[in-house]
Amino acid sequence: MIIIGERINGMFKDIGEGLRNKDPKPLQHWALKQEEGGAHYLDVNSGPAVPSHERPEAYEWMVKIIQEVSELPLCLDSTNYDAIEAGLKLVKRPALINSVPAERAKIERVFSMAVTYNAALIGLTMDNVGIPKDAENRVAFAMELVAAADEFGLPMEDLFLDPLIMPCNVAQEHAPEVLESIRMIKTLANPAPKTVLGLSNVSQKSPDRHLINRTYLAMAMACGLDAAIMDANDDALVDVAATGQILLNKSIYADSYLKVFRQR
Amino acid sequence: MIIIGERINGMFKDIGEGLRNKDPKPLQHWALKQEEGGAHYLDVNSGPAVPSHERPEAYEWMVKIIQEVSELPLCLDSTNYDAIEAGLKLVKRPALINSVPAERAKIERVFSMAVTYNAALIGLTMDNVGIPKDAENRVAFAMELVAAADEFGLPMEDLFLDPLIMPCNVAQEHAPEVLESIRMIKTLANPAPKTVLGLSNVSQKSPDRHLINRTYLAMAMACGLDAAIMDANDDALVDVAATGQILLNKSIYADSYLKVFRQR
Repeated sequence: MIIIGERINGMFKDIGEGLRNKDPKPLQHWALKQEEGGAHYLDVNSGPAVPSHERPEAYEWMVKIIQEVSELPLCLDSTNYDAIEAGLKLVKRPALINSVPAERAKIERVFSMAVTYNAALIGLTMDNVGIPKDAENRVAFAMELVAAADEFGLPMEDLFLDPLIMPCNVAQEHAPEVLESIRMIKTLANPAPKTVLGLSNVSQKSPDRHLINRTYLAMAMACGLDAAIMDANDDALVDVAATGQILLNKSIYADSYLKVFRQR
Repeated sequence: MIIIGERINGMFKDIGEGLRNKDPKPLQHWALKQEEGGAHYLDVNSGPAVPSHERPEAYEWMVKIIQEVSELPLCLDSTNYDAIEAGLKLVKRPALINSVPAERAKIERVFSMAVTYNAALIGLTMDNVGIPKDAENRVAFAMELVAAADEFGLPMEDLFLDPLIMPCNVAQEHAPEVLESIRMIKTLANPAPKTVLGLSNVSQKSPDRHLINRTYLAMAMACGLDAAIMDANDDALVDVAATGQILLNKSIYADSYLKVFRQR
């Protein structure tokens, strides 16, 4: 399980303030804290805290100040591809681009950019019309993205497909469809593309958020989930990631496996 | 998720003493306590606390005294089929027989008994040689048991197939094979047979037993698990069962879903 720490996001008050005041402290604090928690990548998302035209400069700044304190690779998360490209020029380790939908113009721009900068790429199983309700139509979009990887020369293991989980309190019927999508996506090519979820979305505004997140993580791992953008400082959630690895026989059991997982 | 409470088992000290002293109190205590926890069935197993030739009488006594305090149906758990039959004669609600392996002589005795007493039946994916390591051979035994249900006239939805999870600290490679077995068993017939696990076995002698149990429960539910013999008083585990139902869209989401699950 690849854990992508979700916390450096302008939607959070402290990160938003850091971005507005050009204060690196909250971003650097969360870079280190997520690394300690068990993150393998750090998601970097200005969110609405930075106006769109200022984002390329903001992503340059974020990449620089985060790399001052952390060795972790970055997951550059924005709908502004100029901002992502500005960040890609500065990353010290191969990054993950987050994200591209199954729309031709965006596919052309983003897959080319991934190949140019030796980055991995998250593809979303949606188009400009929206997110399908069922697994079959999600997988049809996944297939377009797999074909694009082939067309643009992105190695299949660098393509992460996100079947887009919705909050279970308002769109419950999506949850089993996303599990089925993960299972089907893993059969689309050989080597298989990777799968990823924005996990916290499943529990938006539910009173039992942490329980729902960790239950769904285990369920998705059983279906073939490779990575999650998630709360890397929710210890019980990271424990489930570690335990799932054991129960899928992907890490070797030791009584100390929870500690071993965090040491990497 | 059908929760079969595991606690009335002579392997536990208090139940073993109750059996030896013909003291109904510990058995009745755990009948009520497991019902409160969220059990839908009560497993009833004398274990080695009663010598084999005394077991028919012991099962009569257990069934009687448990039914004095609880309305829950019973899961009669023994390798002594005379003991199970003695219990079946006294149950007030259709019972679950636990269990029969894929061995012809036992199949003939136990499937006939299930049909005669209108009981459901747990079939084990093993024979007298042992438990297979991989999913394919587990499913081959499952197929024999599905054919037996057809032959003896047991309704398919009354057949519970147990692919036999092993402790992950000594037989880790079984855990993903059992998940795959569950998935395959659900495709063997239409209507599908049910699936069940003796869940606590996965974590035998591991320091993080509760975490392993609840992670594996979520994973197995994602693969189609219908029932588990488990600790019905592990609240965090029952919470996962309830949450899994929500995330599979099998129970309708409400903010109070954890409470609703326990009210049944």
